[in-house]
Amino acid sequence: MSSSPAPGCLPLSRLNAAAGGSETLPQPQKHELSSGSCRMRSLVIFYLCYLLCLGLGVACVVCVCVWNSRWRGGFAWDRSGLQFNWHPVLMVTGLVVLYGNGAVLYRIPLTWGQNKLPWKLLHAALMLLALILSIVGLSAVFQVHNAGNTPNLYSLHSWIGIAAVALFALQWVVGMAGFLLPWTPTSLRKLLKPAHVWLGGGIMLLSVAACLSGINEKLFFVLRGDTPYSDLPPEAVLANTLGVLIVAFGLVVLKILSSTEWQRPDSRPEDMAYTPLLQEEN
Amino acid sequence: MSSSPAPGCLPLSRLNAAAGGSETLPQPQKHELSSGSCRMRSLVIFYLCYLLCLGLGVACVVCVCVWNSRWRGGFAWDRSGLQFNWHPVLMVTGLVVLYGNGAVLYRIPLTWGQNKLPWKLLHAALMLLALILSIVGLSAVFQVHNAGNTPNLYSLHSWIGIAAVALFALQWVVGMAGFLLPWTPTSLRKLLKPAHVWLGGGIMLLSVAACLSGINEKLFFVLRGDTPYSDLPPEAVLANTLGVLIVAFGLVVLKILSSTEWQRPDSRPEDMAYTPLLQEEN
Repeated sequence: MSSSPAPGCLPLSRLNAAAGGSETLPQPQKHELSSGSCRMRSLVIFYLCYLLCLGLGVACVVCVCVWNSRWRGGFAWDRSGLQFNWHPVLMVTGLVVLYGNGAVLYRIPLTWGQNKLPWKLLHAALMLLALILSIVGLSAVFQVHNAGNTPNLYSLHSWIGIAAVALFALQWVVGMAGFLLPWTPTSLRKLLKPAHVWLGGGIMLLSVAACLSGINEKLFFVLRGDTPYSDLPPEAVLANTLGVLIVAFGLVVLKILSSTEWQRPDSRPEDMAYTPLLQEEN
Repeated sequence: MSSSPAPGCLPLSRLNAAAGGSETLPQPQKHELSSGSCRMRSLVIFYLCYLLCLGLGVACVVCVCVWNSRWRGGFAWDRSGLQFNWHPVLMVTGLVVLYGNGAVLYRIPLTWGQNKLPWKLLHAALMLLALILSIVGLSAVFQVHNAGNTPNLYSLHSWIGIAAVALFALQWVVGMAGFLLPWTPTSLRKLLKPAHVWLGGGIMLLSVAACLSGINEKLFFVLRGDTPYSDLPPEAVLANTLGVLIVAFGLVVLKILSSTEWQRPDSRPEDMAYTPLLQEEN
């Protein structure tokens, strides 16, 4: 799923490095650079995708909050049905929107001219917040189930959801140990990185699938009797739309992650000049 | 989600090209090449992933067939519940397994030394077969719904599933016109390619999400009364396992697609020497 740069264009990262005079490029490529049109086009497309990512993320959060406050009775933390309503809100906000935004952080070209360390810390912090929200979201539903003697973890939705959160927790711990602690050997970091990037995309796929199956299941549970799901009442349209927004968000995140031209240039000479708090990853 | 080659290794495609003496490489890289260990390691990891992809694909098809024949009463084409059973079998076989195998076809290094055209035709043929199976799978459920006056296309599962098949059909037609018809300008092909690759991965994500929400929904519908889903009867364990296998298959396919080191080298000099039936894409 990795995408190459647009025809005739170098990756943004190489253009960046070339602009600093750190690479020797063939003449035709230098000529293209001088116009700057390739770089500008790639930048514009990136920021359009990034704006779309932000906009879709906000739309997902608004949609899931409106659904649960307007149609499901609002929120409480009293082991009642109102506590359950925190589950979709926290999972969509944490496991999808915050997670996706944390994942694409390094791709923002604005951050490339700066020390990577603060961005690594922000990446880790965003992911930790996303993980905490997800765990609280899981606790909400476990407590409600236990209070009502409803079994846990039997549906495929729950299997996929718990796998997503477990892998996310593993990813965070291994990422923290591998990329932020100063005593991890650089060779181990280089080995870990492709696995970290791939598992990051995989967790996004699991999160999207878990959210969609959860919304679908919830609507079949609650829309019965006079207003069946099959009549597509306004609540069903809103929650289905939430599902579509989540899919669109996931596709945009995967697009940003899969484009090699938007990868942060890891080995630019200026990166070596930093004196980071913790050892800089390659 | 694009993965870089393993540390110290060139992408397989560049190694391939270098082995043919068509590129000038820096001395340290030449030294690494001479040992051949990087190439061998990358090849071994690719074929392990590819075997896993094939194995998981077979396991998905066996699982969905056993589920529907052993626990759902088997198959018929008579607008009864037995006709419905074709729906999961055809969607998993077509939209997930055949589709995923068609998507990773170009990544098989064995095919790189050969004319690309037969592989393009095989890619198009596999995808067409996958599309036909998916459309027949949709027809099965539409006919059953219509015969029983059950509404169509109201659930989130159906929205995601129909979007996956519609995008797949669009992708096939645009892919056929863009990459196989001889009168399509090369510049248009180069523009289309990143979109084709990205949408290919996106359709895989939609297919997996649609299958998981469908399995989850079906189990809540049929496992009631004496053997509720929450008791995890053998049928539920089998169908949940099918969901896990589908996710694992999707992750392996996305891993193969996202690794830049496993991309087919498109611009190798020997590719230019072919006299294809149709114009060769770059």
